[in-house]
Amino acid sequence: MPAPTPAPGLDQPPPPPPLAAATLAELRAIVGEAGLISDPAAMLPYLREQRGNYTGRAPLVIRPATTAEVSAVMRCLYAADVKVVPQGGNTSLCGASTPSEIGDEVVLSLARLDRVRAVDAQNFTMTVEAGCILSDLQQAAAQADRLFPLSLAAQGSCQIGGNLSTNAGGVQVLRYGNARDLTLGLEVVLASGEIWDGLRGLRKDNTGYDLKHLFIGAEGTLGIITAAVLKLFPLPRANATAWLAIASPAAAVRLLADLQARFASTLTACELVSDVALGLVRQHIPGPHPALSASPWHLLIELSAGGEESELREALGALLAEALASGTISDAVLAQSGEQARRLWAMRENIGEAQRIDGLSIKHDVSVPISRIPEFVERADQALTEAFPGLRIVTFGHIGDGNLHYNQSQAAAGRNAAFLAAQPAVNRIVHDLVDELGGSISAEHGIGQLKRDELRRYKSPVEIEMMRAIKHVLDPQGLMNPGKVL
Amino acid sequence: MPAPTPAPGLDQPPPPPPLAAATLAELRAIVGEAGLISDPAAMLPYLREQRGNYTGRAPLVIRPATTAEVSAVMRCLYAADVKVVPQGGNTSLCGASTPSEIGDEVVLSLARLDRVRAVDAQNFTMTVEAGCILSDLQQAAAQADRLFPLSLAAQGSCQIGGNLSTNAGGVQVLRYGNARDLTLGLEVVLASGEIWDGLRGLRKDNTGYDLKHLFIGAEGTLGIITAAVLKLFPLPRANATAWLAIASPAAAVRLLADLQARFASTLTACELVSDVALGLVRQHIPGPHPALSASPWHLLIELSAGGEESELREALGALLAEALASGTISDAVLAQSGEQARRLWAMRENIGEAQRIDGLSIKHDVSVPISRIPEFVERADQALTEAFPGLRIVTFGHIGDGNLHYNQSQAAAGRNAAFLAAQPAVNRIVHDLVDELGGSISAEHGIGQLKRDELRRYKSPVEIEMMRAIKHVLDPQGLMNPGKVL
Repeated sequence: MPAPTPAPGLDQPPPPPPLAAATLAELRAIVGEAGLISDPAAMLPYLREQRGNYTGRAPLVIRPATTAEVSAVMRCLYAADVKVVPQGGNTSLCGASTPSEIGDEVVLSLARLDRVRAVDAQNFTMTVEAGCILSDLQQAAAQADRLFPLSLAAQGSCQIGGNLSTNAGGVQVLRYGNARDLTLGLEVVLASGEIWDGLRGLRKDNTGYDLKHLFIGAEGTLGIITAAVLKLFPLPRANATAWLAIASPAAAVRLLADLQARFASTLTACELVSDVALGLVRQHIPGPHPALSASPWHLLIELSAGGEESELREALGALLAEALASGTISDAVLAQSGEQARRLWAMRENIGEAQRIDGLSIKHDVSVPISRIPEFVERADQALTEAFPGLRIVTFGHIGDGNLHYNQSQAAAGRNAAFLAAQPAVNRIVHDLVDELGGSISAEHGIGQLKRDELRRYKSPVEIEMMRAIKHVLDPQGLMNPGKVL
Repeated sequence: MPAPTPAPGLDQPPPPPPLAAATLAELRAIVGEAGLISDPAAMLPYLREQRGNYTGRAPLVIRPATTAEVSAVMRCLYAADVKVVPQGGNTSLCGASTPSEIGDEVVLSLARLDRVRAVDAQNFTMTVEAGCILSDLQQAAAQADRLFPLSLAAQGSCQIGGNLSTNAGGVQVLRYGNARDLTLGLEVVLASGEIWDGLRGLRKDNTGYDLKHLFIGAEGTLGIITAAVLKLFPLPRANATAWLAIASPAAAVRLLADLQARFASTLTACELVSDVALGLVRQHIPGPHPALSASPWHLLIELSAGGEESELREALGALLAEALASGTISDAVLAQSGEQARRLWAMRENIGEAQRIDGLSIKHDVSVPISRIPEFVERADQALTEAFPGLRIVTFGHIGDGNLHYNQSQAAAGRNAAFLAAQPAVNRIVHDLVDELGGSISAEHGIGQLKRDELRRYKSPVEIEMMRAIKHVLDPQGLMNPGKVL
């Protein structure tokens, strides 16, 4: 448990406690002047969450360039009992990557560990350092005629170390899995500064406890991921993309099972979009937009395979014709080119930006068993609109993973400041239902600072206690990203 | 660290220390008379590894019928400080499931926890208890028009709890992953008797540390898996199977990459078989056998998909025609019926039985990066045949996973008893090379008692220390399957 935040003066918070001169000198000797930032303006991008929801303070930002430097830095901080916030691209949506307001935690940026150490096309792996930008890794894989499938909105600035520390998801999890599933090995610097070399590139390795899964998704609270061996896949030669008009989430779940039976793992994406969510894109994102039929719900599906694109499109077209004939869907647009496919995808991918332009909202990132999605949407919609008249609900997400982004605002925008104050009550309705249906209150964004109290509410004491015990073993001094997750 | 084994008298080992009468009475009150076995003859199947390599002793075999009973049993054993060996179908190949010869460990059999609690076809999951037989689970899935893909030689008697505790592999890992990858949630009884209900059926859940991965593959040393939520897949409608004659492991690895580029995840198996391994099947397993061309190496490949079988066979035939034309393979048999496919598969699946009939051998279950397989085979073959003239090497395995079964015996059978005494020297050659190539000394069978000393040799001190620390946190009294893994 971190110490409670002392209340700062309203106008002039006390300056953060400085690091001991000897510690600072030792850090300077390890990383050099170029590896330290202490100027307040230069530190700001490392202290502030991108949307401005969290702004912390720190005496120092440290930017080591190698794993050996990370190790030496941690040995120094461990000896001096200094808390540390490991940071990748600082794109966390839950305040996981910024320090607290107390100002006694240093930020350790992995940005300079940005080398692709090896690409092994025959083994379908690449070994990369934590600070590599996700989109750069997608390109490195493509240059070796391979696919690295992790794909998400922040890919131009997020770093793979952060992706692994938060077990990032995205739009291709249905086929390829989360960041966790894409990882064969890790290199980790422990709180003590010791280096664990677990950089194995093996599909099968049953030699003891699988420690890498502890660090993946731990949000930097157990150690610092400095490198990873990632799985690669064949680069798909052919894609088929379609936008479907469908009556309800229940019909979408049934169609999903049909698609999986017919196309198995050729089905690489299945995204549910409510008409309200689509409407925001039409309203706020400049067109022209594809002509899509009016429908309460929409489904964006994508197939990917190694064969001929015409065959894939034909097979999807045949199934869609059956679905139209049986009334499962009321309309379908099957992209006839890569450009058409991109325009359909843009309608899905721009929902986040359209929401941002539209204004404030209360956001949820939840999952339930796929079979419970219809019940979740029906009951949550009903409970929320009863409790908050005039509510507008934006529902979209990765239905094939049981993962919905489920966001609320007042249809009358002027009432939203007041509505945001009701977030605890809104969370209670949504998260209680998620919990009842066996779901997760954080499907892909993690816990960070944002959901720490919610985590304590919904996890069993047995599970919290195991997590605490493991945290204590790996981080006995409580220095690693304090106040996050636990 | 377990206490060293005291040397028993050669003819009459001292009787195992009896349990305290009060403990026995408490256990009887929990599981009833039907849940206890103390008769030596009736206990024997629980104390003896199937091939007779390990025979232990125990004061008692306990057979609880529910998770609540497992919990109560563990509370009792924890209070009484009694060591416990959790046991599934007792099919471990590494001595992981039998007690030591000291006789102070009770066996806790999960066999009576054998219910399928739920099948959720829309969520592609089933929730099952630890004692369910693997082949029964395959059938339960098939009845719901779903595939549970875990498949291995012992499937008629092994139990899913053991499969998870050893992270079992098998022939479909290339497409579907290990037991670990097939698990979404676990229920675990901890050493203290507390129950951790982690039975979540979610594809995405980023709420804290992923504890299930600690228990999977831990061989019962951290807790007792009592139930699991397992992933299901669409039942393939179509298969295409072919047996190829190929010149070398290097050619096989190149062809594998071509197959993956063309067929992606439609490729569900890719098994390498040396001509020596095939010869043993021809020699010891009654025919008729399929007519297969002479070749130093063979490759068995299988495609599975949701579409038309004729299309799948045609696509595979086209690629094989190209491979024949380019000289990549020298012959190919493409099965024209399910019966022909089964006969080809039998040539691969009977290698183990043919080896057993043939006599004793030194066995290795190793993995290396797929790209290093050719180098491993070449260098290991050369080093072993130089060190042991007249050696016969049987090589086969799951090349798509980088996993080889690599076994040695003397071609002159009469010399094998002496050769077996050289196992440490043989292991050193094989395992040192595996280690040099970044591989694993136990790809799918685990550590158990058999490879415990080897584990200490090849794991870094940092990794061993992390494993020990986590073991100590979850099993502070050292009661869980002592002497295994660590």
